[in-house]
Amino acid sequence: MVYDVAIVGTGPAGLSAALTLKLHNKEIVWFGSAALSDKVGKSEKIANYPGVPMVSGAELNAKFSEQAEEMGIELTDKKVTNIADLGDKFMLLADNEVYEAKTVLLTTGIPQAKGMENEERLLGSAVSYCATCDGFLYKDKTVAVYCTDERMAHDIDYLEEIAAKVYVYTNFGYSNESPKIEILDKPIKKIDGAMKAEAVELSDGRRIDVDGVFILRPAIAPSTLFTGLELDGAHIKVDRNQETNYKGCFAAGDCTGRPYQIAKAVGEGNVAAHAILERLAE
Amino acid sequence: MVYDVAIVGTGPAGLSAALTLKLHNKEIVWFGSAALSDKVGKSEKIANYPGVPMVSGAELNAKFSEQAEEMGIELTDKKVTNIADLGDKFMLLADNEVYEAKTVLLTTGIPQAKGMENEERLLGSAVSYCATCDGFLYKDKTVAVYCTDERMAHDIDYLEEIAAKVYVYTNFGYSNESPKIEILDKPIKKIDGAMKAEAVELSDGRRIDVDGVFILRPAIAPSTLFTGLELDGAHIKVDRNQETNYKGCFAAGDCTGRPYQIAKAVGEGNVAAHAILERLAE
Repeated sequence: MVYDVAIVGTGPAGLSAALTLKLHNKEIVWFGSAALSDKVGKSEKIANYPGVPMVSGAELNAKFSEQAEEMGIELTDKKVTNIADLGDKFMLLADNEVYEAKTVLLTTGIPQAKGMENEERLLGSAVSYCATCDGFLYKDKTVAVYCTDERMAHDIDYLEEIAAKVYVYTNFGYSNESPKIEILDKPIKKIDGAMKAEAVELSDGRRIDVDGVFILRPAIAPSTLFTGLELDGAHIKVDRNQETNYKGCFAAGDCTGRPYQIAKAVGEGNVAAHAILERLAE
Repeated sequence: MVYDVAIVGTGPAGLSAALTLKLHNKEIVWFGSAALSDKVGKSEKIANYPGVPMVSGAELNAKFSEQAEEMGIELTDKKVTNIADLGDKFMLLADNEVYEAKTVLLTTGIPQAKGMENEERLLGSAVSYCATCDGFLYKDKTVAVYCTDERMAHDIDYLEEIAAKVYVYTNFGYSNESPKIEILDKPIKKIDGAMKAEAVELSDGRRIDVDGVFILRPAIAPSTLFTGLELDGAHIKVDRNQETNYKGCFAAGDCTGRPYQIAKAVGEGNVAAHAILERLAE
């Protein structure tokens, strides 16, 4: 089926849009972590969100989650790794499954750093963002993992089961007693290889030969997610209707710029939803 | 004193900004009805505001009010009728008192229709927006009142006490048994007079000689409130930081355009507050 809207990201901007679009009986597919925004969840106290005084991020996420459920909004706990404009609709790749939608709303959060050297060039050539999708290709082989999202630690465990050797850099203190695991104390800075990834280089200059590289971040850089998306610095460039340079593709929340605030995200999600409703009515 | 920020309007956009500015210890003067947004208050059910599921407008306004109070944000229940840019600061006239502020945030709600014929030209010349301010000028005289804000009905009562005769048009069914009151069943469409108001014309063409005209609306048209403010249609034109053509004067919420939604207002108020913080830091 072709959905009316694909929403990528389950933070406040995505929820705000989903609520409005659902009220208007649109067919939504909503991708992201069922735990909702990690950034909201980790906020100790939120003092400036109108209507919900002095709330912890975890409590607010619980409210958000309950509200989505009450409205019958389902969440697809998959990671979108690629989006393409097919002209009359968009194609999204999520955990290796293909989805189609008339419009897209990106609510992908604070843009991640640009990625490591050669990451973009070698993506798909022994460089992957998805262990579930591509892990099986590395049975009894050697892989390197760069992971900055604690909620994806299970993907490292999964790679350990498959591969012969797993070099792991994380920023959250991952541990695994398996002899197949070697924890790196320096981050990976560069991927080497002409046609495909052949080695990684660490920040201290050390080089490790590998058969594949897995990069597991909370979000993918917008330009990697959707090639050709116009940026303003690291942020997705949008107009007053939250529309990007791709007609029918909108963006809202932290990914469009500061302030990185719940109220701002919720507002932009609402504006984007209304612009999407207008677009769908055309 | 010169306030850091004057916020004009007590709807969701104003509250959102006030919360953030107060957290940053800014000196705020916040003008508007203590009953907060009439439009929110009259919403039967709000289904798409993240964090507060299926709430009535009255309940949400009560939450807003409590939250402002808990944060120690005071409300100045006065109506701003005029704003001027003094270069290094702004001057605001509220119920005939002068206030000064380094920055201004307009959250004045859905823009009212342009006003009646000759209203702008004769404002201040026997045409007034404020019964409390100018009522005393019409002792034992004849006035016409055009009132579309039920919360200002007490101003009609006040004029009845002072004047000899009060012609009243309202859109909410005002009643007063006084022989001095004459209820008009057609709205006032035009004010006549060369140097000052001398008569009003009703929509059915009837003409009534008067000494003064009081126009009591929930909000004043932005261009009347602040001469020279750049508009986009009926709405206040703002950039991505919610700043108007007057540097230091920002706008947020319904007054900047559709969608007329709480989430959008809250988001824009937040963005404006952060832009104001940056401006104040300069």
